[in-house]
Amino acid sequence: MLSIGIDGGGSTLRVGIFNENLECLHLHEIPETANPSSIGFAETEKRLRFSVLQTLDEAGVDFSSVRHVGAGMAGVAQNLDWLRNVLVSVLPQAEITVAPDYEIALIGAHGKRYGILVLSGTGSAACGINASGELAHSGGWGYLLGDEGSGYWLGLEMLKAVARAADGREKKTKLFVETLANLKISDPDELITWLYAPERNNRQIAKMASLVLSAASHGDSVANKIIESGADHLYQLYMSVVKRLNFADPPVMFAGGLLSSETPLRRLLMQKIGLN
Amino acid sequence: MLSIGIDGGGSTLRVGIFNENLECLHLHEIPETANPSSIGFAETEKRLRFSVLQTLDEAGVDFSSVRHVGAGMAGVAQNLDWLRNVLVSVLPQAEITVAPDYEIALIGAHGKRYGILVLSGTGSAACGINASGELAHSGGWGYLLGDEGSGYWLGLEMLKAVARAADGREKKTKLFVETLANLKISDPDELITWLYAPERNNRQIAKMASLVLSAASHGDSVANKIIESGADHLYQLYMSVVKRLNFADPPVMFAGGLLSSETPLRRLLMQKIGLN
Repeated sequence: MLSIGIDGGGSTLRVGIFNENLECLHLHEIPETANPSSIGFAETEKRLRFSVLQTLDEAGVDFSSVRHVGAGMAGVAQNLDWLRNVLVSVLPQAEITVAPDYEIALIGAHGKRYGILVLSGTGSAACGINASGELAHSGGWGYLLGDEGSGYWLGLEMLKAVARAADGREKKTKLFVETLANLKISDPDELITWLYAPERNNRQIAKMASLVLSAASHGDSVANKIIESGADHLYQLYMSVVKRLNFADPPVMFAGGLLSSETPLRRLLMQKIGLN
Repeated sequence: MLSIGIDGGGSTLRVGIFNENLECLHLHEIPETANPSSIGFAETEKRLRFSVLQTLDEAGVDFSSVRHVGAGMAGVAQNLDWLRNVLVSVLPQAEITVAPDYEIALIGAHGKRYGILVLSGTGSAACGINASGELAHSGGWGYLLGDEGSGYWLGLEMLKAVARAADGREKKTKLFVETLANLKISDPDELITWLYAPERNNRQIAKMASLVLSAASHGDSVANKIIESGADHLYQLYMSVVKRLNFADPPVMFAGGLLSSETPLRRLLMQKIGLN
């Protein structure tokens, strides 16, 4: 009796096959989003189907031996039924459990259904589950509506700062020079051609966050302002979850590329929360 | 001897045929953008070609009688050569003059190449031409990078406020209720489905600015905060142009749907500039 676990984040889709002892027998990982807010429901369904079937094929597992499927995905909190239906159509004999990505990330980080999780990867969100089992989340509205403090947001704030500096509305610090060098452009006006190119995707913008983080570590004032604002937004997400769950002194974990390693963003956020 | 004038804004493409006295013989207007930052260069070229040929056809004018073409378009400031080449290929016998949309808007508003123009339509920008003929502009970076204080920006800020209110990070004022009613959704979570639908376009988001403007007129505190911030951003654009042109007491005109009529945004911006 086998189980399949699916973790669909803003930048990576993982499908794993597990035995009865929950040992991973095979892991299939593709560096692509499966977030319907970014790529649409039709494309998400295609990627999901294809990845599940390919994982079974790679592992030499027949689909009839899969009894349980657990899937946590970004951008589906409002469309869990849709996700369930897609999975039912691929694995009709299995028991299907679906959840938003932040819920599985919280349980994964704390090892139980309890505590607070602040997430900053391609997108951003906070969520919590209190002692009564109540769940609340904040953020996760996608790249146009929110995702403040996420990799995408930091990358875009950096590009906005470059645009303002070109207009004479912001200081031209080292971050300005480094951004143009990184994009291999000489004139800030070319930012427009770069950013609105049809092939541009959110992941490429989110990857630029590393430039802001590194510049902030070296004391760049514009980068520091961006990181400070990002940490403040993440703290607001955290606080709104704490308040709504009446959570006193909750255990807090971090997830996502920008908080799971030692970054200036993580340091600042920990300070604000009072974790150091 | 005839001339063609082309005005491509964020939401409307106009092609006019003029006689030697610059009287408009025929005007072709389509409610679509021709901004390559929004729809790409290939699609812009297609729309432009088609509109010019259709205008000539409607007016019963043979293309060989067109001697001058003047085109001002959004999103082409960095790609004026591209625009010139497209027009040369359609009307090879004509003399072609190309300019960014804000430059023709400034000349149109002041009736001469002198003064400052602040523009807020689907996008936003400021530009100016001083007594020495120097031109400077600020803003106009498109919907992802800037356009603060524009219709698109106001509409999106409204949706962001609704998202924050759903998270408990913002007050639920009348604007919250009216936005959901306007979008015909009952749950704020459905905002995501609405906003990221493949058919959604910037013009539809920009049109929602009228809700914020009307709520602000009725004293809605969240709407007022958005309008105040938008006016402040437009003032920053204005100031950066004034400074770079060393402009003392410049004549100022407004353009675009959000500033060309009496709106709370226009009133606030005029106050900041000291025009009343």
